Amino acid sequence: MAEKLKIIPLGGLDEIGKNCTVLEYGKDMIVIDCGVGFPEEDMYGVDLVIPDFSYLVANQKKLKGMFITHGHEDHIGSIPYAMQQISCPIHGTAMTNGLIKLKLEEHKLADKVKLITHKAGDTVKAGCFSVEFIHVNHSIADAVAFNIKTPVGNVIFTGDFKIDPTAADGMIDLARLGQLGNEGVLALLADSTNVERSGYTPSETMVAESLDRQFRNCDQRIIVTTFASNMHRIQSILTTAQRHGRKVAVTGRSMENMLKVGQELGYIKVKPGTIVDLAATKSLPKNKVVIVSTGSQGENMSALYRMAFNTHKQVDITSGDRIIISASAIPGNEKAVSKIINELYRKGADVVYEKSEGLHASGHACREELKIIHGLVRPKFFLPAHGEQRMLQIHSKLAQSMGMNPRHIHIMEIGKVFEFTGKTCKENGTVPAGKVFVDGSGVGDVGSVVLRDRKHLAEDGMIVVVVNLNAEDGSVLTGPDIITRGFIYVKESEELMESLQEVAMEAIERCQRKRVRDWSSIKSAIKNDISGYLYKTTKRNPMILPVITEI
Amino acid sequence: MAEKLKIIPLGGLDEIGKNCTVLEYGKDMIVIDCGVGFPEEDMYGVDLVIPDFSYLVANQKKLKGMFITHGHEDHIGSIPYAMQQISCPIHGTAMTNGLIKLKLEEHKLADKVKLITHKAGDTVKAGCFSVEFIHVNHSIADAVAFNIKTPVGNVIFTGDFKIDPTAADGMIDLARLGQLGNEGVLALLADSTNVERSGYTPSETMVAESLDRQFRNCDQRIIVTTFASNMHRIQSILTTAQRHGRKVAVTGRSMENMLKVGQELGYIKVKPGTIVDLAATKSLPKNKVVIVSTGSQGENMSALYRMAFNTHKQVDITSGDRIIISASAIPGNEKAVSKIINELYRKGADVVYEKSEGLHASGHACREELKIIHGLVRPKFFLPAHGEQRMLQIHSKLAQSMGMNPRHIHIMEIGKVFEFTGKTCKENGTVPAGKVFVDGSGVGDVGSVVLRDRKHLAEDGMIVVVVNLNAEDGSVLTGPDIITRGFIYVKESEELMESLQEVAMEAIERCQRKRVRDWSSIKSAIKNDISGYLYKTTKRNPMILPVITEI
Repeated sequence: MAEKLKIIPLGGLDEIGKNCTVLEYGKDMIVIDCGVGFPEEDMYGVDLVIPDFSYLVANQKKLKGMFITHGHEDHIGSIPYAMQQISCPIHGTAMTNGLIKLKLEEHKLADKVKLITHKAGDTVKAGCFSVEFIHVNHSIADAVAFNIKTPVGNVIFTGDFKIDPTAADGMIDLARLGQLGNEGVLALLADSTNVERSGYTPSETMVAESLDRQFRNCDQRIIVTTFASNMHRIQSILTTAQRHGRKVAVTGRSMENMLKVGQELGYIKVKPGTIVDLAATKSLPKNKVVIVSTGSQGENMSALYRMAFNTHKQVDITSGDRIIISASAIPGNEKAVSKIINELYRKGADVVYEKSEGLHASGHACREELKIIHGLVRPKFFLPAHGEQRMLQIHSKLAQSMGMNPRHIHIMEIGKVFEFTGKTCKENGTVPAGKVFVDGSGVGDVGSVVLRDRKHLAEDGMIVVVVNLNAEDGSVLTGPDIITRGFIYVKESEELMESLQEVAMEAIERCQRKRVRDWSSIKSAIKNDISGYLYKTTKRNPMILPVITEI
Repeated sequence: MAEKLKIIPLGGLDEIGKNCTVLEYGKDMIVIDCGVGFPEEDMYGVDLVIPDFSYLVANQKKLKGMFITHGHEDHIGSIPYAMQQISCPIHGTAMTNGLIKLKLEEHKLADKVKLITHKAGDTVKAGCFSVEFIHVNHSIADAVAFNIKTPVGNVIFTGDFKIDPTAADGMIDLARLGQLGNEGVLALLADSTNVERSGYTPSETMVAESLDRQFRNCDQRIIVTTFASNMHRIQSILTTAQRHGRKVAVTGRSMENMLKVGQELGYIKVKPGTIVDLAATKSLPKNKVVIVSTGSQGENMSALYRMAFNTHKQVDITSGDRIIISASAIPGNEKAVSKIINELYRKGADVVYEKSEGLHASGHACREELKIIHGLVRPKFFLPAHGEQRMLQIHSKLAQSMGMNPRHIHIMEIGKVFEFTGKTCKENGTVPAGKVFVDGSGVGDVGSVVLRDRKHLAEDGMIVVVVNLNAEDGSVLTGPDIITRGFIYVKESEELMESLQEVAMEAIERCQRKRVRDWSSIKSAIKNDISGYLYKTTKRNPMILPVITEI
């Protein structure tokens, strides 16, 4: 029987982020992207979410390479974690690899991993696959789509993309996508992020014009915040500043890093003397200064956050400062962003952030752009990628509205195997996959039990009941003592604390009367009685932790 | 010296919610609105936030009455908590009082509190004040503004409002506001919620038309969710259902309550037989059924949530169900709403929720509407109300753009006293004010220390270290034993647990060598050593709780 092509998503579906997809054929396997996800509200204390790499570890021998579409965290962020478990060369464009390199250095892995740089138009052989890099537009420079030539046909991964006909680095290579469409494409996996939005995503050029409008009649200091990775945006800010005779200083670690990488790789072009040290801006007239800052998502301790809350060592917000938020809040960050805006207003700053001002453009294709891609590629099979369930479903409907057979559309799920011959696509089995939590330096040692406990502790705090029993007769030597954290303001609740001691004592005495001597029964008795008493008196349910020692 | 009028906000500024404002003149005091706020993300375990009522308690003798603009939680939710501490009659319209009554009954206070019902146009004497009820439009029926005649001039509180010329219960009484403007208004306190939005808020009539469009070509079951308190919207759903020959069932406690109150008070008019029991919908053809449900904000355990996650006892979502979300997500609820929408899509439902569909209209005036109010009222002093800092500041700028003197505009702060003569307004001192947390049945017993502990526990969990020492020589009798919750998956971390025991033992032995016997020093030694060790090995910082007993 002939081999089949397997496409297996390890992330990026039913979620935003953590993009990672496996392609397998016979003895060859490649991986497209290797991103992180960010914790949901109920993932207390979790720093990052990464894919479960056990399928890659088990198939290390087959692994021919990792191919990265672009340098955003949700596409490269898990690389260091993967590379601690597996080994293979990583292929990306210059900008993408520049960012991966920074990341590998941080994790002290730079020497271990082979990074190979290509440019749009290149084709890379990896086992039976050959992977072609195709230029696309996105909110980071040097982003690509892949056409993967496999033994059963071409598979196109768009990665994150938009169509920007006036992009600084040239429009997405629609001609090549059209040519591939004409030659025949087996499967298309396309970005679903903005499928709910009608029309077209605006161009970065529009944002540049809006920035110019904001700079034009301003005789005050200007502070601009945006995504550090958006090189084209940062270039627009620099160009606009030069046009208006302003010097530019940068604040925030990721913005400083990015400016360095961008200049080294030639993505940022700026006249000598335009970029100055932050300290130097103090001696310049206000209308000659632009500060570019991190913090567009309201991140705690970002440079803009520190400015707003008076903890930035070098910049104090003063009345009249014009603060331009050249970004939109990612779902979940709205409140954090608005908290900063409120503080900036309180200090008398003039904050420009409304969507109507055209200060941001999304990096993802809206409906009309997606239709163009479908129209050009005309794949045999379509698998909506990058999106939550509703986006995948809506993307499926969009494809159907263009005449696609619904039976040729597959809604993928993480860990599910999709098998292709040149003519068919079938779901067939699963591989291990899921969410692995990173907390501090620990990977995978925080799971659902730990998170459930954290949630419990967060909501109602805890009560420790300490008792020492005589090992001989089970009588109480010391205690019960009650210690609480996160439950109630103890100094004003002495009466309640005393009652809890009594309740615990009664539970222990009841056990003694019944001649119950095993700890776990005594513990349950204490737990149940205190829990019942507290619910009755306070309607709260703290975690109760009886600690019994026999001496 | 002549008395001055004092206006003292106890809530509703620098926040959304918790609206409560005091008016005081000589021996008379009245309160406008008495709402709750909802906890911010970092207020772990807090159910509600209410104002600090100590200024009202201290001035109980002066209290002549409480006046309520409308029946939303952020205007009535704290009434039961206030009425446990103070006593005065409450004045509201029929709908508002109907909702307050339900709330008082829940708290077993219905007998204690005097509720007096008025209608728009009425004027109520309360000490030296006379309070006129003025009809406004809002997303709840029977909302009013107040004109308060005081010894130094008229003060207008708009409450929450919009201008809806085609409202079912008639347009806001602009004529009366204009007349008052002509007679002279000392101060205007006006809703700032939507001051960032240009233009006009759409009418409820537009929403009714959109609903009709959604019903028209649908031969499936329809499930609509909206705010339970939006009586006009619910009436529109009922009317539309009748027009299309569908029966209506209701699910979710607040929706059931509201339908009952609405029908009793005559706000909801429906043909006999239109409303049916939820169980009865099962035997009806799908195209004859509408279910009206709670859950428009993605609330956990709301009826729509239970339907989406298969835990609703009577309704299973089936492929083709049309689910209409006739609401927009309140900031902070976006993710919860999108989680439900994803699940509904997964079940094959057709979910309609986009803003572009016109399925919701805000209850708050946008910029052009606000301008009309300013143009009609033309107050001597303007105090932006109901809003976060940026909204208050932008509202101030809007007033200035209409020619108002910036020195006649005051940005209020909770607890600050604003003193008025007929000609001046000055800030003068403060009164106790702030946020009081309700957790379970406890009011005010959870404060910043408890919340800080909850946050700490939430992020990294905790470690209890139990040691029993010999009271005579300080030697270790039992332990140190390590118990953790929410820290790490213990079964896979036995080595770490053993190391922690060793680290704790070393700390105790060090103390013994130095002849340190006081518990607090031994506790700090254990805490510091374990904390240092953990940070080095795991980059985490759990709460460490040493428990030492001497026997």
